[in-house]
Amino acid sequence: MVSSDPSYHTVPTMAKSSTHFHRSKTSIFLSDGCLFLGGAFSALLIVGVFFSFTTPIPSNIPNLGSVTTNPDLRLDPPDRTFYDDPEMGYTMEKKVHNWDKKREEWLKHHPSFAAGAKERIMTVTGSQPKPCKNPIGDHLLLRFFKNKVDYCRLHGYDIYYNNALLHPKMFGYWAKYPVVKAAMLAHPEAEWIYWVDSDALFTDMDFKLPLERYKDHNLVVHGWPRLIHEKRSWTGLNAGVFLIRNCQWSLDFMDVWASMGPQTPNYEKWGKTLRSTFKDKFFPESDDQTGLAYLIAIEKDKWADKIYLESEYFFEGYWEEIKVSERYGELREKFVRGGDEVVGRLKRPFITHFTGCQPCSGDHNHMYSADACWNGMLRALNFADNQVLRPHGYMHPDLGDNGVTPIPSDYPPP
Amino acid sequence: MVSSDPSYHTVPTMAKSSTHFHRSKTSIFLSDGCLFLGGAFSALLIVGVFFSFTTPIPSNIPNLGSVTTNPDLRLDPPDRTFYDDPEMGYTMEKKVHNWDKKREEWLKHHPSFAAGAKERIMTVTGSQPKPCKNPIGDHLLLRFFKNKVDYCRLHGYDIYYNNALLHPKMFGYWAKYPVVKAAMLAHPEAEWIYWVDSDALFTDMDFKLPLERYKDHNLVVHGWPRLIHEKRSWTGLNAGVFLIRNCQWSLDFMDVWASMGPQTPNYEKWGKTLRSTFKDKFFPESDDQTGLAYLIAIEKDKWADKIYLESEYFFEGYWEEIKVSERYGELREKFVRGGDEVVGRLKRPFITHFTGCQPCSGDHNHMYSADACWNGMLRALNFADNQVLRPHGYMHPDLGDNGVTPIPSDYPPP
Repeated sequence: MVSSDPSYHTVPTMAKSSTHFHRSKTSIFLSDGCLFLGGAFSALLIVGVFFSFTTPIPSNIPNLGSVTTNPDLRLDPPDRTFYDDPEMGYTMEKKVHNWDKKREEWLKHHPSFAAGAKERIMTVTGSQPKPCKNPIGDHLLLRFFKNKVDYCRLHGYDIYYNNALLHPKMFGYWAKYPVVKAAMLAHPEAEWIYWVDSDALFTDMDFKLPLERYKDHNLVVHGWPRLIHEKRSWTGLNAGVFLIRNCQWSLDFMDVWASMGPQTPNYEKWGKTLRSTFKDKFFPESDDQTGLAYLIAIEKDKWADKIYLESEYFFEGYWEEIKVSERYGELREKFVRGGDEVVGRLKRPFITHFTGCQPCSGDHNHMYSADACWNGMLRALNFADNQVLRPHGYMHPDLGDNGVTPIPSDYPPP
Repeated sequence: MVSSDPSYHTVPTMAKSSTHFHRSKTSIFLSDGCLFLGGAFSALLIVGVFFSFTTPIPSNIPNLGSVTTNPDLRLDPPDRTFYDDPEMGYTMEKKVHNWDKKREEWLKHHPSFAAGAKERIMTVTGSQPKPCKNPIGDHLLLRFFKNKVDYCRLHGYDIYYNNALLHPKMFGYWAKYPVVKAAMLAHPEAEWIYWVDSDALFTDMDFKLPLERYKDHNLVVHGWPRLIHEKRSWTGLNAGVFLIRNCQWSLDFMDVWASMGPQTPNYEKWGKTLRSTFKDKFFPESDDQTGLAYLIAIEKDKWADKIYLESEYFFEGYWEEIKVSERYGELREKFVRGGDEVVGRLKRPFITHFTGCQPCSGDHNHMYSADACWNGMLRALNFADNQVLRPHGYMHPDLGDNGVTPIPSDYPPP
């Protein structure tokens, strides 16, 4: 399990771990008179001696005295790796080659990351750079982020929150692809990048991703083969939550996938193509979800065997289908069965995704009322939070209210 | 480094890891006729068989097949520990005894947590349950939280964000004490609880807390002995950032410290006492910061030897003193020297704390303009974010703007 972010301590020419802006000591000394020079020098000498005894050495110098059990780049040899190659690029435009070999070499050079390498997950999420239009939008995003941090803490995953628009033309749902790519390249220690939308939360804190199911695949989304290949429905899968393996296949796939985006000259053409292939897609713009469905359906032989359409648990659970208010509010289990979607008797959906609620803009789909969205989110957040609060001795007795009470000592165990 | 939160998997009578609300199978079966019963039973049988092959076993059952390098309670023996004692309590009122022994026993029972136990840090922060009054308040809190998550990821610390009011009468700055206590008790694997206010951020992502300096102490705050013991200034220390050791001394100390709070009958009396002892305290209410200064100054023999007043680096850096706009905006180092506060020639303050800016309520101290606060925060957040973005191949070229650009391949190394 990665505890220290290795990319941060790597000293590549391309990507450094810190931004140092400073004038050299020389210019300060020479630009003043001797008296000031002597005084300054003495002061610096005193402080320097003082700090050499008290201040830890900055972490970009190997510190072999550091007592830590964390995989720590400071203890691994600082050999040149692919990061030193000026051709190496993190942006969507820069094609990356031989990534599998590069990752393998990197792991060889950083043996402290070898343990757990095959299962290491980096969770990535994020939101827009500027404040939300919805007055409670950022508050909701904060709560959804806390939820993800809680889940990752419990399961030993690293998590990275992106709030920068990495490509000026890749807005909205397309914005995640430059982030996922950069995360892959910056984190060769991670086997999987786990993208989770800002409006999705973990509602089963116990549940662990069954990675062994995906050992022969490189991309996992929630979906149903029949709805993609036969019914050609744009909601036959959901692109708001996915697991993508950190490998060359994924980089190549994302190149193709992202080539349907607004930053390319083919954007409008793709909008038309996707809409004519998936007849229930009701908006004209090329979107990543239909794009993915298209690649699975139409470029099947190229990609489909490496893409796992998961439907046996709520890898991504649509909140309306989960009947959030009933499930979480009325303390009752609901057994839902329909078509390809055998949901089963799950007490707690793994992930509940408030698609269509748009917490940040507030521009929710008119199928739902604002109240249904916000109350649903509140209940789901408190439901999840109870699973985290309980070990701390507290709980929300009423999921519709943020108030907490200490857990009574005679409270029955789950 | 804790990867899986152990308290979550402990199965105590007091604090369980999940809230299960369900009707028993029995009531469903008996309440309907035979035909329905048969159909329901068949469906459940099919689904049950299906899930037994596909769904992972819930994590509160030991899963010895799990391949993980994370310290995992599932692999430790499920013996009874102090959590099974119904007298055990997490709230401020419940006195806890023999905590050192209990922690020691817990660690013996959970050998997977032994490695790194002496340095394990749990960072704790948080904010109010409801949306901020300031329209950009939650947005700022979200960014400050992301900053903390970034720092913790890089250094292998767990982080817990609290947004519940655990004691109805302990509001404002007093609200953190029930949270810190609950965190201690719920995380016996953590040697230190590291409280960081919601309006404080890490501006040096490289810097590691020099724990060896504090090996003989139980509480660390930023402060100056002379200002506490001689000048009796309420700002002789700052209680917005502290390291507190997870031990009986700390529980006892917090009992005394919190006894000055609004939940006690002595609250008003303490307000007067603190104000008369620390003459520059200008507001009447008993506050935790002056309370701490009081205990160090007046109950010196009882507590002071275990409390470290750190001033040799920005364990907590007051933003105004750091001259945020100049330091971060004009790319210039500032050498500050004054009295007991020898700050030294630090390129990047470890922590920058926007005391007095009140991002959530927006009710900033009138010493500062709103612009100075918000622009200062923006610059500091982007300054810190650059240290995280760089390894991902991007940076904010202008700290006053959230825009990013890819790092050019010829960009000089730091």
